[in-house]
Amino acid sequence: MAADQPESVEPQSRSFLAETENFRNGGGSPRDFLERCIATIEALEPRIGAFVSLDIEGARKAADAAGERWKAGKMLSPVDGMPLGVKDIMETAALPTEQGSPLFEGWRGGRDSAAVAALREAGAIIIGKTVTTEFAATQPRGTRNPWDLRRTPGGSSSGSVAAVAAGMIPAALGSQGLGSTIRPSSFCGVFGFKPSLGALNRGGSFDYVSQSVSSVLAATLEEAWIVARAISARVGGDPGFAGLMGPIAAPAASKPACLALLETGGWKSASAEAKQALVEVRGRLDTAGIKIIDRTADDAVAAVEDAIADAATVTRGLNTWDSRWPLNTYVRDMDASKLSQYARDRQITADQMTQQDYQGLVAKRQSARETYAPLADRCDACVTLSATGAAPLGLESTGDAAFAVPTSLLGTPAVSLPVLQAEGLPLGLQLIGFTDEDAALFETAAAVVSLFEE
Amino acid sequence: MAADQPESVEPQSRSFLAETENFRNGGGSPRDFLERCIATIEALEPRIGAFVSLDIEGARKAADAAGERWKAGKMLSPVDGMPLGVKDIMETAALPTEQGSPLFEGWRGGRDSAAVAALREAGAIIIGKTVTTEFAATQPRGTRNPWDLRRTPGGSSSGSVAAVAAGMIPAALGSQGLGSTIRPSSFCGVFGFKPSLGALNRGGSFDYVSQSVSSVLAATLEEAWIVARAISARVGGDPGFAGLMGPIAAPAASKPACLALLETGGWKSASAEAKQALVEVRGRLDTAGIKIIDRTADDAVAAVEDAIADAATVTRGLNTWDSRWPLNTYVRDMDASKLSQYARDRQITADQMTQQDYQGLVAKRQSARETYAPLADRCDACVTLSATGAAPLGLESTGDAAFAVPTSLLGTPAVSLPVLQAEGLPLGLQLIGFTDEDAALFETAAAVVSLFEE
Repeated sequence: MAADQPESVEPQSRSFLAETENFRNGGGSPRDFLERCIATIEALEPRIGAFVSLDIEGARKAADAAGERWKAGKMLSPVDGMPLGVKDIMETAALPTEQGSPLFEGWRGGRDSAAVAALREAGAIIIGKTVTTEFAATQPRGTRNPWDLRRTPGGSSSGSVAAVAAGMIPAALGSQGLGSTIRPSSFCGVFGFKPSLGALNRGGSFDYVSQSVSSVLAATLEEAWIVARAISARVGGDPGFAGLMGPIAAPAASKPACLALLETGGWKSASAEAKQALVEVRGRLDTAGIKIIDRTADDAVAAVEDAIADAATVTRGLNTWDSRWPLNTYVRDMDASKLSQYARDRQITADQMTQQDYQGLVAKRQSARETYAPLADRCDACVTLSATGAAPLGLESTGDAAFAVPTSLLGTPAVSLPVLQAEGLPLGLQLIGFTDEDAALFETAAAVVSLFEE
Repeated sequence: MAADQPESVEPQSRSFLAETENFRNGGGSPRDFLERCIATIEALEPRIGAFVSLDIEGARKAADAAGERWKAGKMLSPVDGMPLGVKDIMETAALPTEQGSPLFEGWRGGRDSAAVAALREAGAIIIGKTVTTEFAATQPRGTRNPWDLRRTPGGSSSGSVAAVAAGMIPAALGSQGLGSTIRPSSFCGVFGFKPSLGALNRGGSFDYVSQSVSSVLAATLEEAWIVARAISARVGGDPGFAGLMGPIAAPAASKPACLALLETGGWKSASAEAKQALVEVRGRLDTAGIKIIDRTADDAVAAVEDAIADAATVTRGLNTWDSRWPLNTYVRDMDASKLSQYARDRQITADQMTQQDYQGLVAKRQSARETYAPLADRCDACVTLSATGAAPLGLESTGDAAFAVPTSLLGTPAVSLPVLQAEGLPLGLQLIGFTDEDAALFETAAAVVSLFEE
């Protein structure tokens, strides 16, 4: 193809839940479903580059075992037999964990991360490890956007989102400490769920960022929930956190009475088309009888806008200090030539920070959280864009995370709903909930999604 | 020797700080100091079993480099040239990390843990990895108490405490999520410092217990501080925590006006001799003009006693759920026959717990913390025993942690001061401070120690 011609791979949504009724009545099986996933991977992976490694034979064995359980009516969970991708920062007993870095090529710790252990216990099938930017930070590793191969899928959960968007798998694990789930979900037109801080146990994930959380990218809203909930029911949240609570199946839709419309720090860099899309969403919500409050009419919303205005700057400072280790040992004790220039620069920046700098940033974050929390008395959730526009051209950057970063700072749950477009490409609508009220956010999100189905 | 005859190895306190003046004036060097440590290790290690692995040649090189810095007056920190042991749950680039488990024999992750990276940056010398009970939990690994080789040194920081007590090294890293620092410090007659929750970055430590914290065992109170502070100044605390703050050198003594005497849940199992020792401490503090309040005279102290009465039970529940992962993957994905019966049983108990169980225990812990915090208005610190008595006979148990567990639950800093005796063996006096006020606790502790020096 000519370099300036868009080429896509016919993105598709491959829902597992939509098939499970067939598993019960014998009209299909987890193995059949898996084989369709494998066929799509074989067809598209050379052009997408979503996976670092695959365990096809292990997946087939697991699918057959799941099929027996479905036939016997003895499913381990709603995700029994579901093929999943796992962001390559999370340890897996069966496959290496390379963190998107040549420094960790072939690295094996011998065990499963908490989330993977839980999902396997629930019957889910780990089909492969998905591409992450280097150490889940900024440096991309070549994954392409299924909607336009010249464009980034976003990051850092690049492979997870691209694999789901291309219909290779119904869902995958990601993470977000800045914009690594909501941004790529927007760029690739999939559902993205960034849970409340601490909601999913990060044990065995190479993720040391204090505001980061493990997340789910999925073909449907329901699947984003059931995957996350299958984890928390088995291994809880981060140590000291009870973890994601709520129904094991997806929460039923519940129309919100009121939503707060947030511009966030992203508004000034949003494209005109993206802004217009949000204006139209406002009209649609209004028509549906949902009250909308915003900064012009509500002081509490205005206070939140002020509190999150510098979310990106504060977050970059926090994440840099949180990355001081292990970057320092990677530079000093390993082969530093295998680190990106970005990682080496970040280590230097981190070394120039002080404990006092970090303490100040933590206080700012805490203040933003305290400003946001009372908004729960005024609305059911907040609504904004997931990104400034369509995925940008080029693979050298993962795009602007301005709309995604506020919930990383706030520690609140967020979902990206693939219901908007810009430049004829996907654009996500973001709903933001309140800390540890993830299930309520899903109730609202299901209702909002239904407004876009006609 | 006859099995029933006590044999000791002539325990000694080998202070590094006491020597550094010589490094400046050329009357000695870090290398000289190190060689004395090595000679003691060679003489005593066969009978003590404090180390899993040693890096003697690496230590010598590092000591020579530190010596050059001392001669040039360009020391990197107060711990420059100080030989340290590292509990074998913390990753080290130069040595394997085996977690006290045959499952991890020879395991190498390729990097330094955060604390080790920081200490090396500060010029400290990592001479070896010290024995830990299996996964820093209960199953001992054969280390003996230098004061009586028939007795346990306590756990889980068994090798760290024994190495310091035997004069092999001036200090070592440990951890505590139940009683793993304060208890062994008491049994072996060394200074033990369990910092505030989150005060020392646990990155790269195989430690997933929500109330656990990295700690220091040391020959002197001052050395416990400077080692901990050298870590936090460079890599801070756990993600989201600013980490231990205060002077880089040890805080100066400051006589407390008032101390709260706590019995804790340990009182009922304390030996008569241990109880009598605390009674005598009370008299000594009283003579020094320090006011003592206790449960009989002060309702706030009584409320704290009630809040920590079941600290052991609550802690065991919390720690069991926190250990659900990785024990589940160790059992399922690795060679489970290499796990102790204790670990296998714990995995089963953990599997029977629910998220709701954990949530209830977290709420109890939080309530205890909220009951304790206001005590800061009434006293400078709390005082109690560090253990129920002398180290018990036998190596199959690490002893009773009843006096050590309350601060694990509370998240407060604690120090064990080796100033008491029972059965002619060491018994620690424990001082307990207030969260993130570790430096103030050291000021108090230094003053209390001085009351026992005559």
